[in-house]
Order: sequence, then structure tokens, then C-alpha cells
Amino acid sequence: MARIDLNSDLGEGYGAWTMGDDAAMLAVVSSANVACGFHAGDPAGILSTLREAAARGVAVGAHVGYPDRVGFGRRPMDVAPADLEADVIYQIGALQGLARAAGTRVSYVKPHGALYNTIAHDARQAAAVIAGVRAVDPSLVLMGLAGAPVLAQAQAAGLAVMAEAFADRAYQPDGQLVSRREAGAVLHDPDMVAARMLRLATEGVIEAVDGSFLRLEAGSICVHGDSPGAVAMARQIRETLVQAGVTIAPFTGGA
Amino acid sequence: MARIDLNSDLGEGYGAWTMGDDAAMLAVVSSANVACGFHAGDPAGILSTLREAAARGVAVGAHVGYPDRVGFGRRPMDVAPADLEADVIYQIGALQGLARAAGTRVSYVKPHGALYNTIAHDARQAAAVIAGVRAVDPSLVLMGLAGAPVLAQAQAAGLAVMAEAFADRAYQPDGQLVSRREAGAVLHDPDMVAARMLRLATEGVIEAVDGSFLRLEAGSICVHGDSPGAVAMARQIRETLVQAGVTIAPFTGGA
Amino acid sequence: MARIDLNSDLGEGYGAWTMGDDAAMLAVVSSANVACGFHAGDPAGILSTLREAAARGVAVGAHVGYPDRVGFGRRPMDVAPADLEADVIYQIGALQGLARAAGTRVSYVKPHGALYNTIAHDARQAAAVIAGVRAVDPSLVLMGLAGAPVLAQAQAAGLAVMAEAFADRAYQPDGQLVSRREAGAVLHDPDMVAARMLRLATEGVIEAVDGSFLRLEAGSICVHGDSPGAVAMARQIRETLVQAGVTIAPFTGGA
Amino acid sequence: MARIDLNSDLGEGYGAWTMGDDAAMLAVVSSANVACGFHAGDPAGILSTLREAAARGVAVGAHVGYPDRVGFGRRPMDVAPADLEADVIYQIGALQGLARAAGTRVSYVKPHGALYNTIAHDARQAAAVIAGVRAVDPSLVLMGLAGAPVLAQAQAAGLAVMAEAFADRAYQPDGQLVSRREAGAVLHDPDMVAARMLRLATEGVIEAVDGSFLRLEAGSICVHGDSPGAVAMARQIRETLVQAGVTIAPFTGGA
Repeated sequence: MARIDLNSDLGEGYGAWTMGDDAAMLAVVSSANVACGFHAGDPAGILSTLREAAARGVAVGAHVGYPDRVGFGRRPMDVAPADLEADVIYQIGALQGLARAAGTRVSYVKPHGALYNTIAHDARQAAAVIAGVRAVDPSLVLMGLAGAPVLAQAQAAGLAVMAEAFADRAYQPDGQLVSRREAGAVLHDPDMVAARMLRLATEGVIEAVDGSFLRLEAGSICVHGDSPGAVAMARQIRETLVQAGVTIAPFTGGA
Repeated sequence: MARIDLNSDLGEGYGAWTMGDDAAMLAVVSSANVACGFHAGDPAGILSTLREAAARGVAVGAHVGYPDRVGFGRRPMDVAPADLEADVIYQIGALQGLARAAGTRVSYVKPHGALYNTIAHDARQAAAVIAGVRAVDPSLVLMGLAGAPVLAQAQAAGLAVMAEAFADRAYQPDGQLVSRREAGAVLHDPDMVAARMLRLATEGVIEAVDGSFLRLEAGSICVHGDSPGAVAMARQIRETLVQAGVTIAPFTGGA
Repeated sequence: MARIDLNSDLGEGYGAWTMGDDAAMLAVVSSANVACGFHAGDPAGILSTLREAAARGVAVGAHVGYPDRVGFGRRPMDVAPADLEADVIYQIGALQGLARAAGTRVSYVKPHGALYNTIAHDARQAAAVIAGVRAVDPSLVLMGLAGAPVLAQAQAAGLAVMAEAFADRAYQPDGQLVSRREAGAVLHDPDMVAARMLRLATEGVIEAVDGSFLRLEAGSICVHGDSPGAVAMARQIRETLVQAGVTIAPFTGGA
Repeated sequence: MARIDLNSDLGEGYGAWTMGDDAAMLAVVSSANVACGFHAGDPAGILSTLREAAARGVAVGAHVGYPDRVGFGRRPMDVAPADLEADVIYQIGALQGLARAAGTRVSYVKPHGALYNTIAHDARQAAAVIAGVRAVDPSLVLMGLAGAPVLAQAQAAGLAVMAEAFADRAYQPDGQLVSRREAGAVLHDPDMVAARMLRLATEGVIEAVDGSFLRLEAGSICVHGDSPGAVAMARQIRETLVQAGVTIAPFTGGA
């Protein structure tokens, strides 16, 4: 029987500012990528999200980012490897502390935004992230884009990895995402997206923009929750998968 | 044979800015209160200090502070208890992560600056700090001013505590520090300060400003290292104690 | 014919985070208290709000706050007068620069949150704010709570002042606001609030919680826009005033 | 008679952290590039530096940087043009406010660190900086590396520009700086550096690393003051120039 993980970015408020609907998404996903305070997240808000995740049995990942709050971690930064490694350790450690206080634990790491995109192809920054994860806890799993070189690099360094697919993104025939600068890069039809993800979960294939079918080894699907429409799409994906008999569960073997 | 701990605030640089001479002080003290990034300390700088502390067998404490970098955590802030508790957890967790990466561990917590002074008498903020320490690791020791109510409050809540004395501060007959606003509050003569600390370490008494002798139960002495003169005074205290046969060692039973 | 100003806090987003509906509120108010980057507001977001304010002829005030973004400037801080004065100058200057770029100008200053409340009664921090305003531009008007000592203090120092009333707050018979900790402090009925403000604008009186009528010299009314309900209430106040023939206009004589 | 400006980066402390010796350097230079709070500088510290600059008749420039305090503005960041433009306006405005309070004015703009280097060749970020300067005050002069394309770009956009040379850097025959990654990029001999700068000031030529002589149109020389050795070198440059009859004066026609 098929089984897959659903993950989403949570804990992204900051002080008086909110983002997304964490409570709604924690009813949909099996894994929560929780902000660690560098690009988003304040301690009390993160703790609140972690408590809700713990209560729902949702696994927790450290959503580490660049130290760029005003840019939400979305701007490429040329951070020196030693600084980046320490930044990653600091963020994971902080989330681990909060997770203990919330009665849960951090089981994986998923870099955020520009850091996610950069390490997918930049081996120097990738090595710094991998070293940071290993230094703080070598049993943590690194989540990354299915097919990205960073996953093999992490495995070679001794880390377990988890490949993910993006529910609402179009794919090129070679497995790369269609750039957001191109038309059709982001998919908006919940029915179509849910059908694509069902096929991915059950057959391991996804239709590329040229109509060809692509094999994608992904154990997790990333869904969004930053707008009411996004939450609705995430719910539909979950329902479509569950109704087809797919088990939605954390890839880490439970929270 | 007498035994006492010497502690100092370290890791207080920030990015390109330095403060104090951590390497020099790590040759003097047995316990390092390491900044956690809120009032001072950036991840790479903290990590560097932790590695040096580990190499020298100096115990590590989390020097948690208010989220006020430009004010260096020295300005009283009316932080709500739930926020303060989460801030404390976050900072301890971050330092624990970096400590693991440096091959050491956090064994105690010493609040910094205005937070230190506020919780000495403000039971509401003290309760938040105590709750934060317990939530992240109830085996952590809370360090505070000898005689301050916060120590009894922490013990009642189940935390072990460590009372400290300040080497370069004048004391009132009731054990309180003479306010910095008054003349003579800070002592500058290394010989006199070292002699005072020797008597404290061997007899448990300190001379108050009125010439009376005060019993002070302190297992640790706080020394400063933020200027060449402060480092020299700290060295002299250590030498005076060691020459008199006092063992300088972490109160936590080792790093 | 009666004339009054309506003011609201705007420009309070930060990077990817939004707060309130600035475009909607700029169609309602005659004066915009624009965040200056310390408690809220990033340069590009502030500039966008200023351009919209300029396009609508809404006057601009500098909404200066404590340097406490994660606390949204709502937490009392014991900032030294010299630091506070410089913080105020910096924020006003930054907003003036952005205002010039947007084709408008800063005509008044309204402290935000905890700073607003503190200087209402704390003459030391009030003096620092007043000195900061005067140093950057002595023609700026200081807006404050009707009846608060800070207004007389500012006038004595040579600043023009503007007293404001809060549309949705209950008043004590002596003109002070009912504390938010007490039931009934915040008013939620738009009809009642609009009727109160009409009476204030036309007769200069407001009904206190004990049923007595209080004379309140207020040239501006503060309305909120941080929720759809708040925007609706603000609109109703405006419509009620306009239909009764009250002119809504900036107190500064135009943007 | 020859005349040249000496400029240096000042106001680079942050709260309790200091950097360099502003008082010493203000006795050496004729123009001060003052940090604006993004990469360095807090309002009270900046104000103090501006007051000293005003007292000494040293001209003031806005040393605008990326919003990256922990990285001291030295890390390339991919900031979107609209955000960068607003960041530049905000920083200049803030410094203008503080300059008014200090009895002086901002007469030029010199981008800092990674922003300086990036706009030297990146026309997109350069355009954003130029637009920001023009939006806040089109009479401000943009200072940049002699020979860099950004200067022509700024002139084409209507800004006055000032080209500068670096006293302690080696030059390639084509006028580019030798990269810091190469040996010999930074010059340490005060006698040799002073002699080079005298020749630059009087003949407009500088010796390149290959021994050839390069014509360099520079109206200002950048000197450093971040270490005792750097201050001493800056003093020697000034003395050498003055003794040879070169007038050291702000290029902007006075503070």
C-alpha cells in the first residue's frame, strides 16, 4: 500500500505579524517545516506551533534560513561557509530546545527559500549546511528537492536524506522545476494538482510540461498554506490521497 | 581544602565587532557565561568561544538576555512571561546546539544584564526564566546573585542553583551590592580585590562598605574581562587564590 | 462649521508580513501615522504607503517607536534619554527621506505604543522625545493624548501640539482612558462610536463611563484599521461626520 | 596648487561595540563616510560622530549599506531594485536627520562594502542606488571607485560624482584594484603609501603592480582607521601631503 509524507512551511509569523494558518495546515500535513527565527519565527510563536504539532502527531523539521528577516530569507546571500555552518547549528539547536519544551523533537532539516535553492546546486554552501546538520545531530534527515545534487552530497557525507516534490509546481522533463519566471510554473487547479500527486504517490511518476512522464523518487510532497486557496488545495490533495488508500504519515517514523 | 569557581561573560562579540579577550579569560576562569545571540554573540563567534572553552575544560553556561542587541541587554524591558520563557528556551537551545558542535555541553544558565537584575527581585519574570530553564533541561543549574530571592524561588521550583559574588563590587552589610550610582560601588585595586576574594573563598565572608563582615554563601566569583585592566585583575584573583591553595574548578563537576 | 482630523496607524507591515489595509484606510483618514522602521515598517513598504498617502492628500506623521520589532514597540523599555533622543531623530529623518521620494512631507510626530503611553506621564522620556523632534525640525507638531502632561511639556519647549481622542476607547470622567485591563475599555458598536465622535467633533464633549459628560479638546480622532471590523468602524465614523457636515481634514493645513 | 580630499569610514560602532577611533580620524580626514544603521551605526553613536565632524569642519557622506548587520554589509546580497532604492533613501534620510541635529549636513553618498563592490559593475543595483540618491536629494554627490562604470552611469542620470583612490591598495595597469585574494593587494609600508598618494595628488598618476604608471582621476583618497596602524598610516599620508603643499579639503566645498 502506498504511503507518502505531506510537508508544509509553518511557524512563519514574527511577533505581532502572522503568516498562514498553522492550525489548519497541521490538520493536513504529516510533517511541519518550522521556521527557526532567522528568516521568520519568534520563540513564543514557534513554541505555539510546536505544541500544536506535538498534539497532532505531526513530525517537526528545522526550516533553517539565511539571517535576513526583512527579506524573508528569499534573497541569495554570499555567506561564508564557516558562518553558514554555525548559523545552521544555531537554528537547529534553538528549535530543538523549543521542541523539547513542547514535548516533541526535531527529526529533519529543510533549508528555506534562497538557501534551499542555492544549496541545490552550490556545493560549497551545501557542504556548510551538511556540516552544520551533522555537527548538531548526525541522525537528522536532510530534506531537499528530488533530483538535486545536494541529496547525493549529503548522503556521501553520511546523512540520511528525503526527496520531496512540489505539489503546485510544473516540472521539466529532466525533473527540474519550471522557473517561476515562466508562464505555467505554478499550478492553480486543485483537481489537477491532487490527481498529479496521487499518481506520484502511487506510481512514482509525474507529468512534465511537455506531456512526457517523469519518474520522481519523492517520499514527501510540499504543500502550501499561506493563503485560504492554498489551504484548500492542500486539503484536497490530502483527501484525494486518503480516499485512494494512500497512507499520509511522517517519513521519519513518527513525531 | 577550599574550592571555588571563577566565571566571566564571554562570547560577547557580534559579527565584525569584538568585545573583551575571550582567549585570555579562558585561561583564567573555570566557567564561561556565553552569550546566546540576543544581547550579544553571533553563531560563528559563539562557536569559536565554545571550542576554546572545550579545549581548556572550562564549563559553559548560557548567558541569556533580553532581545535588545543595540542596548546590549542592559535596558529593563517589560517582556510578557510567556514570551520571556520562550526567549530563554530558544537561547539555551541554540547554545546547546553550538556546544554539541564544539564537543562540550551547557551545564548552567546565568541571565545577563538587565534580565539578571530584574529577576533578582521580580518574581514574575523570575518565574518565566525558571520555567524556561526547566522546560529545556531541568538538570541545568541557575546561577544568580548570592542572597537574591530568585535562588530560593528556583530551588522551590526544582532547579539546582549556584550563588555568585562579584569580585569588583562593594557590598552593603545586608549582602546587596552597592548601586553603581554611588561612589565606591566598583573596586579598582587588584590587590585589595584579590585579598577580598581569597577571604571569601576560604572563610565565606566579605567586608561590607561599613567595615562589617558579611557571611556570603557563594560558590562562584564573577570576574570581568572587557578591558586589559579587567583581565589583569582577573589573573591576579586567580593567582592569589591558587597560591593560597584554593582549587579553581567548575561548580558543575567539570565541563 | 466643525472640522476635525482622522488619524490612523499605517505602514505597519514588515517585509513579507502585512498588517492592516493601508489602501482602505487612506480613503478614510486625513492623517497617516506612518511606522518608521523601529517597531514596524520596512523602507519599501513605507515608501509604498507614503506614495498612496501623497496621491490622496493624506497628511503624514512619523510614528516613532522603541527599537523592539519582535515586541511591535508595545513593551516598556528603559531607554536612556540620549539614546531615545537619537532614536527619534533617526526615525523622523528616515521617514522624511522617504516622504521626499514619495512627493510628500512629514508634518507631525506621534509616538507609538509603549513609547506613547510612557511619555504621556514620564517627563524624562518625554523630554527626550521632544528634544529629538525639535532637533530634526522644530516646526513638526507633536500629537498626543488629549489631557496628557506631555502636551504642555512640549508646548513649553516650543513645539506645537495636537491633542487626539480615541474613537473606540472608553473614558474616565477625568479624561483618562479606561485601562484595557478593565471590562468595557474598548468599544465595539460602530453606531455608538460614530455618534460619540460626532458629538466630540461638534460639541467638544464625550460621555465618560459614569455617564457624565467630559469636555475634551481634541483636534484629531484616532481610528484603527488592523481588522476588517476596524476598517468598517472607521468608515462609519467618517460617513457619520461627513453627513453631519463636519469637514474631515488634516490639522496641519494639508499634506 | 594641488588639492585633494581624504575620506574614511566612520560611525561604525554599534551600541556597546566600538570600531576604529573616530576622534583620531576626524583630525586626519576632510570627509567622513558615516554609517547609517544598516551595516553599522546606532543613532546615538552616529550622532556623536556627526557632532565631532561638524566641530572639525569635516564633510559628511552617507555610507549606505546592505541590511546585514551581522555580516557588516560585506556579503553580496541579491536585493531587488525597488527594495534597494528604498533602503538607500531610508538610510540617507536617517543620516540627514541626525546631521541636522548635529549642525551639519550630508553632502555625498558612498556605498559601503559589498554594495560598493557590486554597483561598481552591476548596472541593475547601481541604477537602484542612483535612483535612491536622486529621489532623496539630487544635489548629493555619489562617490565611487575611480574608473568604475557606476560613475558614468550616475552622471548620465544627472548626479555629480567623485572618484576616489584607495591609499593602501595595489592597482592593476588598467586601473582596477588587485584582488584581496592575491598577494600584495594591500600595502603596509606607510612611507611608500604616502609617497604614492603624494604623486597621485600632484601628478594624477599611480604606479601599478607591473611598474607602469597609470593616470587616475581621483579627487579623494580613502584611508582607513580601524586599527592603530591604520590611523598612523592615515596621519602620515596627511602630513606628507600637507608638507608638500597639497591642500586637504572636502571636495564638496566645505561641510
